[in-house]
Amino acid sequence: MRLNIKLHALGLGLVLLASAAAAAAAEPQPRKPNIVFILVDNLGYGDIGAYGGGELRGAPTPDIDQLAREGLRLTNFNVEPECTPSRSALMTGRMPVRSGLDGQVANPGNRGGLSPWEVTLLELLQKAGYRTAMYGKWHLGEENGRLPNDQGFDEWWGFPKSSGDTLRELQPGWTAEIAPQQPLMEGRAGQPSEKVGVYNLALRPLMDGMITEKSVAYILDQAGSKQPFFLYVPFSLPHTPPLPNPKFADSGKTDYQNVLREIDANTGAILDALERAGLADNTIVVWTSDNGPETMQGIGVQYGAQADSGPFRGEFPSAWEGAIRTPAIIRWPGHVPAGRSSNALVSIVDFYATFARLAGVEADIPRDRAIDSIDQTDLFLGTADRSKRESVMFFYDSALLAVKWRNYKVHFQVRNTADGTVRVAGQGVTNGYVMTLNYPWIFNIENDPKELWNMSGTSEWLGQPVARVQAEYYRSLARFPNLKPGQEKPVAAQ
Amino acid sequence: MRLNIKLHALGLGLVLLASAAAAAAAEPQPRKPNIVFILVDNLGYGDIGAYGGGELRGAPTPDIDQLAREGLRLTNFNVEPECTPSRSALMTGRMPVRSGLDGQVANPGNRGGLSPWEVTLLELLQKAGYRTAMYGKWHLGEENGRLPNDQGFDEWWGFPKSSGDTLRELQPGWTAEIAPQQPLMEGRAGQPSEKVGVYNLALRPLMDGMITEKSVAYILDQAGSKQPFFLYVPFSLPHTPPLPNPKFADSGKTDYQNVLREIDANTGAILDALERAGLADNTIVVWTSDNGPETMQGIGVQYGAQADSGPFRGEFPSAWEGAIRTPAIIRWPGHVPAGRSSNALVSIVDFYATFARLAGVEADIPRDRAIDSIDQTDLFLGTADRSKRESVMFFYDSALLAVKWRNYKVHFQVRNTADGTVRVAGQGVTNGYVMTLNYPWIFNIENDPKELWNMSGTSEWLGQPVARVQAEYYRSLARFPNLKPGQEKPVAAQ
Repeated sequence: MRLNIKLHALGLGLVLLASAAAAAAAEPQPRKPNIVFILVDNLGYGDIGAYGGGELRGAPTPDIDQLAREGLRLTNFNVEPECTPSRSALMTGRMPVRSGLDGQVANPGNRGGLSPWEVTLLELLQKAGYRTAMYGKWHLGEENGRLPNDQGFDEWWGFPKSSGDTLRELQPGWTAEIAPQQPLMEGRAGQPSEKVGVYNLALRPLMDGMITEKSVAYILDQAGSKQPFFLYVPFSLPHTPPLPNPKFADSGKTDYQNVLREIDANTGAILDALERAGLADNTIVVWTSDNGPETMQGIGVQYGAQADSGPFRGEFPSAWEGAIRTPAIIRWPGHVPAGRSSNALVSIVDFYATFARLAGVEADIPRDRAIDSIDQTDLFLGTADRSKRESVMFFYDSALLAVKWRNYKVHFQVRNTADGTVRVAGQGVTNGYVMTLNYPWIFNIENDPKELWNMSGTSEWLGQPVARVQAEYYRSLARFPNLKPGQEKPVAAQ
Repeated sequence: MRLNIKLHALGLGLVLLASAAAAAAAEPQPRKPNIVFILVDNLGYGDIGAYGGGELRGAPTPDIDQLAREGLRLTNFNVEPECTPSRSALMTGRMPVRSGLDGQVANPGNRGGLSPWEVTLLELLQKAGYRTAMYGKWHLGEENGRLPNDQGFDEWWGFPKSSGDTLRELQPGWTAEIAPQQPLMEGRAGQPSEKVGVYNLALRPLMDGMITEKSVAYILDQAGSKQPFFLYVPFSLPHTPPLPNPKFADSGKTDYQNVLREIDANTGAILDALERAGLADNTIVVWTSDNGPETMQGIGVQYGAQADSGPFRGEFPSAWEGAIRTPAIIRWPGHVPAGRSSNALVSIVDFYATFARLAGVEADIPRDRAIDSIDQTDLFLGTADRSKRESVMFFYDSALLAVKWRNYKVHFQVRNTADGTVRVAGQGVTNGYVMTLNYPWIFNIENDPKELWNMSGTSEWLGQPVARVQAEYYRSLARFPNLKPGQEKPVAAQ
């Protein structure tokens, strides 16, 4: 209203604005890029061909490998130790410990999840005029008020928690009264989400096919639209139970191999939809995994996952490289140079500031809270070789597990180290292993990617830069206290 | 003489033959390809960029990566558990257990080494008209009669044993009387090799530079020659002590990283010499490693090797994939399709029959002994997708350690498993490890490249194809007994 009055009062101004609008129509401003963000579940660094797996794993991944050749392949991309923390980091641009989501995945029935107080990436992109949609796994809350349509998605369809829930019906004596099955839900912004089915074991092999179908339909619907969109595709595979769609159930392969082939084909179908819609050129495609492998075979060979961590040690949830380093491919034709690899340090929190800049809403990044996201636009576009990031901190259950600083990693507390062994450098050990309980454990993760040789005896100096990283975090807490798990708002903001 | 008489008697024939000769000069027969075989020492599958290392290891390897892009990258290339056995396999086309060389590297002073009774690849290639030369590490015998110039090399320069010998002078109390230093030698066919220096710790960092210089000079000398050549370049690096040439001693990197950079640059210098000599197009270049990593840091951080086995488990000497799977790149412009990867099963013994065929001397492969080499020409040239090989056997110290059959591996005896643990599939173990001593251990090495999940409980059926592989070997022994270590000829041939 105020604007209209001002314009009426300034007749000339109005004409000028109209001319400017006409000029814009003739020479349109570069359109804001669409974004398709594909996130697979518990896939290891070594699973796909572009990262040394694929054919080597008996499961070629030609479509993902092609995507890597057409874009940027990050080889030092850091996620969080587990599903929920990684998804929280992606949505908020903040370390999940700040959001009370760095811990164990919320138990069934626990309200939990991402507080609506958080300003999600989607909410930023909506300010930039983006349509937003999600099909797949959420894992950031399971009740209305905490679901995707409460957090910046115009629409969503999928399941609120983990695919592992589908296994409950295998337990002897299980009934829905003891523990109900996970709902399949859908929702639109401004309305409560509704239960539209049950995500049970029968549906489990069909889930990613359904996610793909809905994603493809959404993309085709965007053809010709002037409005940019953000499509989030959090696939359910290869998380346990890794059951492939019957279309991909080659009996000469293991379930996990078939699942890798299915993930590749589903990725290909989404890329193909972008081509068919004429949107491939103006769409940023990101393909990554929320955390490293789970290799459990606890419920029998046929269901067990055998994700592979590539050259790294460890499994999720932990801060070993095998858990927190995953493939990450970024394609944007004509903007992100094709066929490039980079070992620069990038964190999953970095998409927040990067996408905000590319969408032109960097000024809307909130200043009333700690934001850990670093704008990596220059690295992605190839105008810089180096990351602006020098360190990453890994928290779990409120404990600082590890800090990566440049090419070093300092472990303060080690989780999930079933093999339990670390070698000690410079102590005359040849091909032997020494168990040590003295923390910190320090590794040169470039020279020793498997984190086998604890350098703590010779690397006391590293305490100084790492202490500075910690100090900066603790200073930020004084201004912006962390949300505690389940807390709606920080104390200062209550 | 007889030919001359016949030609004189057939005037017309002579004219026709002369015309044919003129036509041949105008359209020469395809020249036999030169071969440059670069073999690095104890480099792991994960060390170079083309196999997931390089920049990730803090040591970019652009020249080797470029070679991989221009040729075939094998991802299931199998060597032997240790240096001497792998070199024996390469030279003879026979499993080293047949040659009495499957065991511990010959001790200093032990005559040992490859028997002159063996028909080496070089002796075959000499029949095909090849010049042959070697610069670098031999490790197949250290006395005259067992040196490269006794085994089919026209000339050689280098050292007879291991670079580890250079460390003896660091031992307190060491004198040359207690254990002399290893000689540096050179030799020509038909003459005894001579000692031309000492391979001591001062020379160790310079060794690969010298090997490169001699290799480059040899290649440049071949420019314009009508005779094909085989040049064997067994580098000394990255074997312990991994000491880089001062030109590559970047103090911001570890010795091992600098050594990787040096290996890359030396490889580049050899490839560059082929270009300068105009020989690149008609030369097959092979780049591989004799066995997987040694990660000992026994004599201090600065000398320790930290080779990386990539996605595989284990270290040399053993039959874990980390020990017996190494990078292998094959370039032959216009013949081997560029930019291809293959996970087909290939063994280091296979070069023997393959090179014999490419040199046109397959008929000269001996029939009076067991030959394990399989001609892989079709696979290398891309006229076949699959290997003709279905299995590989791994012996060490006369014991059968393991058999690979298709995508399975059966371990009968495990060496060097310092971490000592294997998981048991289908037993309710989640993220836990179970120590087992029951052999065999069975792994699906595609689905489980780290050999973590012992499938023996569910894979009894695999005993049958593997038993057939063993039976074929034992049948061959009845006809062709193995040489015992130190034996000159098999009993039947004495």
